[in-house]
Amino acid sequence: MNDTLNTIMNRKSVRKFSDRPVSEEAIKTILKAGMSGPSCVNSRCWSFIVVRDKETILRMADANVKYADPLRRADFGILVCGDLSRTEFFASAREFWAIDGAIAAQNMILAAESLGIGSCWLGTWPVKERVENQAKLFDLPGHIVPHSVIAFGYPAEDVPAGPRPDRPEWDEDRVHWEAW
Amino acid sequence: MNDTLNTIMNRKSVRKFSDRPVSEEAIKTILKAGMSGPSCVNSRCWSFIVVRDKETILRMADANVKYADPLRRADFGILVCGDLSRTEFFASAREFWAIDGAIAAQNMILAAESLGIGSCWLGTWPVKERVENQAKLFDLPGHIVPHSVIAFGYPAEDVPAGPRPDRPEWDEDRVHWEAW
Repeated sequence: MNDTLNTIMNRKSVRKFSDRPVSEEAIKTILKAGMSGPSCVNSRCWSFIVVRDKETILRMADANVKYADPLRRADFGILVCGDLSRTEFFASAREFWAIDGAIAAQNMILAAESLGIGSCWLGTWPVKERVENQAKLFDLPGHIVPHSVIAFGYPAEDVPAGPRPDRPEWDEDRVHWEAW
Repeated sequence: MNDTLNTIMNRKSVRKFSDRPVSEEAIKTILKAGMSGPSCVNSRCWSFIVVRDKETILRMADANVKYADPLRRADFGILVCGDLSRTEFFASAREFWAIDGAIAAQNMILAAESLGIGSCWLGTWPVKERVENQAKLFDLPGHIVPHSVIAFGYPAEDVPAGPRPDRPEWDEDRVHWEAW
């Protein structure tokens, strides 16, 4: 198995982080990974808000309402947003912005994993309350739509490495060959 | 830069494929990568239809209506679907199934890239006509929702390696530090 496959297969969500800070260089590498995914007609219709300030991180967690505790303990968080102003020339990109945001976020998660940095994905869009709360917290213009919050940090020492035991590597009943 | 970062940064969509067939082992590895992404409350609410039959591939391309030519030349295609029956105990998973499908698809694309196999993402959901066409083609039950079609194959010899020249590695104006 090559290194990329190892990164993909061994990744799991990390909900407890150590105090070790992530370097700005590593954060930029993670962002570059987010920018290198495919996007509809190459519209690159996203924006990223990177937050290290502890008080703002706590307010982001409150804004996401539920299941947000991993973010409270994170070294930094990234609010992935869709930038709908970039889709004005491409009707199709407007339909696919949410998928493009997910691609960017998953690329960032895998880039982080490859650097030993854990992450946890907090779903935001399409839950209206969470979207509105994040937009209000960051005073976003109307064309910027909160998509997801990703909590990042080095894993706490007692987080075991490797995939979750309740996540089977292969689910035969989820694969259909040639026909449903 | 580590191998995972190289895979992420150098990936680009491939629209011309060679005749070299992809092994079943490689296809299974790609599917395993799709199954190893995060999903809301670990609901794993997806299904994959793998198609190698040339006639069915052409019909999948027709069903996706536009921009589907790369699939016509692919070695195989995967229709990623959401399985809404798996979300019945988790209201939140039902909201996030489309994001979970995108995560699975991007994992498969990166796993393929690491094996030298190119891919092209054809957007399906949320375009109603495409979703309905694919559902009809595969006679899907109502709880299975077509999400995306990914065309896979070894790149044709004249496809240059590396990222697209019109895809900047770093977009300063897309990154906001601490605040919008």
